[in-house]
Amino acid sequence: MEENNNNTSRRKFIQQTALASAGMILVNPLNILAQNNNQNNMTKNIKSKGYAAKDNSGKLSPWEFERRPVGDNDILIDIKFASICHSDIHQMKGDWGTQQYPQVPGHEIVGIVAAVGKNVTKFKVGDRAGVGCMVDSCMQCESCTHGEEQFCDHGKTLFTYGNPDKTSPSGITQGGYSNNIVVRDHFAVHIPDHISLQEAAPLLCAGITTYSPIMNANFKIGDRVGVAGIGGLGHLAVKIAVSKGAEVYAFTTSPDKAKDILVFGAKEVIVVDSLDKLKPYKGKLDYMISTIPVQFDLAAYSSVVKPYGHFTQVGMPVGFELKLSNIGLASSRVNFNASLIGGIPETQEVVHYCADNKVLPKIEVIKATQINDAWTKVLNKEARYRYVIDAATF
Amino acid sequence: MEENNNNTSRRKFIQQTALASAGMILVNPLNILAQNNNQNNMTKNIKSKGYAAKDNSGKLSPWEFERRPVGDNDILIDIKFASICHSDIHQMKGDWGTQQYPQVPGHEIVGIVAAVGKNVTKFKVGDRAGVGCMVDSCMQCESCTHGEEQFCDHGKTLFTYGNPDKTSPSGITQGGYSNNIVVRDHFAVHIPDHISLQEAAPLLCAGITTYSPIMNANFKIGDRVGVAGIGGLGHLAVKIAVSKGAEVYAFTTSPDKAKDILVFGAKEVIVVDSLDKLKPYKGKLDYMISTIPVQFDLAAYSSVVKPYGHFTQVGMPVGFELKLSNIGLASSRVNFNASLIGGIPETQEVVHYCADNKVLPKIEVIKATQINDAWTKVLNKEARYRYVIDAATF
Repeated sequence: MEENNNNTSRRKFIQQTALASAGMILVNPLNILAQNNNQNNMTKNIKSKGYAAKDNSGKLSPWEFERRPVGDNDILIDIKFASICHSDIHQMKGDWGTQQYPQVPGHEIVGIVAAVGKNVTKFKVGDRAGVGCMVDSCMQCESCTHGEEQFCDHGKTLFTYGNPDKTSPSGITQGGYSNNIVVRDHFAVHIPDHISLQEAAPLLCAGITTYSPIMNANFKIGDRVGVAGIGGLGHLAVKIAVSKGAEVYAFTTSPDKAKDILVFGAKEVIVVDSLDKLKPYKGKLDYMISTIPVQFDLAAYSSVVKPYGHFTQVGMPVGFELKLSNIGLASSRVNFNASLIGGIPETQEVVHYCADNKVLPKIEVIKATQINDAWTKVLNKEARYRYVIDAATF
Repeated sequence: MEENNNNTSRRKFIQQTALASAGMILVNPLNILAQNNNQNNMTKNIKSKGYAAKDNSGKLSPWEFERRPVGDNDILIDIKFASICHSDIHQMKGDWGTQQYPQVPGHEIVGIVAAVGKNVTKFKVGDRAGVGCMVDSCMQCESCTHGEEQFCDHGKTLFTYGNPDKTSPSGITQGGYSNNIVVRDHFAVHIPDHISLQEAAPLLCAGITTYSPIMNANFKIGDRVGVAGIGGLGHLAVKIAVSKGAEVYAFTTSPDKAKDILVFGAKEVIVVDSLDKLKPYKGKLDYMISTIPVQFDLAAYSSVVKPYGHFTQVGMPVGFELKLSNIGLASSRVNFNASLIGGIPETQEVVHYCADNKVLPKIEVIKATQINDAWTKVLNKEARYRYVIDAATF
């Protein structure tokens, strides 16, 4: 946990600096510089550098750009790590619609608060903070006030990258494959001290996206929970469901993941090299979550859930379009739903839950120069199980 | 109710004849003929005539064929009426897979029991009886023994027409557009005296297919229930939901149906000439059932249901395949399920419920020669709302 110790030291230093700049400006000349920097952050665009897609090739390259100044309700985060989600690849390639480029992906972001706006009470300089898939919403509608900001009734949910954003110098939101980010305080969560920043990063999307529907499924201890697709999201789904007392059945197309998955706590691993492998499990599970991010035979997979049970899809295929056999779904008598990340309060909850219960992603820390290679591996199902970019290498 | 009276008279006559043939053979020479006919029914194929598809053109023509002899657990029904379901057209045209022809469609069948096998206690000769979408199953698995024979765990559900059937002289099951049918007693239901046979016919598919998911939805009196697609199934869904105390919102693409639908008891009719018409209802309904038998924007329609509510699809489009926007469904937070008819006990229940509560389909009785014209009208959304074929005209 070297990084953690480093961060703790750094955090104390920054906290002290912040306290100093707030009330003891004249004590130490260094603080004058700190305050000046802070004032600059509040009035001028902030220089940032990272890796961006310049086109829909699915390749990224270095890019220097600017963030908006820190507004009254914003915080500036000095990014330490950002992890790679399959969604980053989908969106940059235009799988979900035409994109504006250059665009910096990344919505699993952790770092240290470097500046706060004058209205901010949620964070102070030096705090460990994380940002997930969204950075703003109306915050007044029923969905927003009930902690489901991702479903803002006024359609004002602002996703972390690629969304039109007048406050952004580039005209769109720019994500976390970069060295800093400015975000409305509400949309950042606290990262407790007892989890490393690099292990916390994947919780901001992969963690919350699986935790939210698993909690919503209300299964009982000992119930049989299926997880289909054991990648970045799926391996966390297995761990979360196991930690919540489920008997977990993991469905994967990668036979070489079987050993890992059993270590994660799954009761059984089913290698689905043919849909026939699903048949023995017909109607056996109490609940199932699928993280499969491509087209698949949804009715065949849902048939492993008991009649009138629920099946949740969280993977988002090309065009967001799923095809399903209506008669297949009728025969399984399963309720199908789709889930999209989770709200901010629940994102905070999953971070604390995973930190407290040592439900940690299996990660590999990489440098910025390794991003393109890592993306290829994600597409080839070779990630084990989440690549985390060290932001110091941007 | 001329037909009903006629049937009552006829029923008494047939009952008396049956009683006579059972115990008083020598009393009246006519009974010898009756018994001989019955014995012939038990040992020889039964001649039948009806309208069949000879190819996938979607056109029917007269056809004479044979049914199997009446087995020990079978009944022979002298068909009086069979109504036209959109499914008949889909299947004959090959929309759901390649078909064997000639094939007689029809799975909304009512008539009078004309013979019973020696083990049959459920019916006696002269009883009014109805047959819906299935005619056999294993009757031993969990689904079958729990009244969900349409989902036989052993895959033995035998649908009323077009299914491979070794007991059928033509090799497949043949449906109800004909003058008689032989069916295992369990798969026929009683038609009470206080509903006309022609009004009972549509309950055997359209009725049960909408009644079953509506009952399963467990809505409370006063809840807002949506019905999308107001044809044969949809108009019954409106009437059933209204009779169960729901405030019904009917969604149709046919503006000229609006007046009828209000008479059926709907609170409001929404003419969906553009998907924008759905927007004011976003999240307003407690439950929704769609009978739309073609591709449609499932996520847009489901968005009218409140978050975490349920949406049931019963219409079956070409190829049984539905496309849906995963992110659209995620945003609505609605549980999607599909429902396939209903089991035999519930089919009996819906017939009694509709008879007792005067929940009756709006029908038009036609002759056999009008079938092809009626099919065209069904496809053109001109049916108001169910065509019922008078089997005396075959």
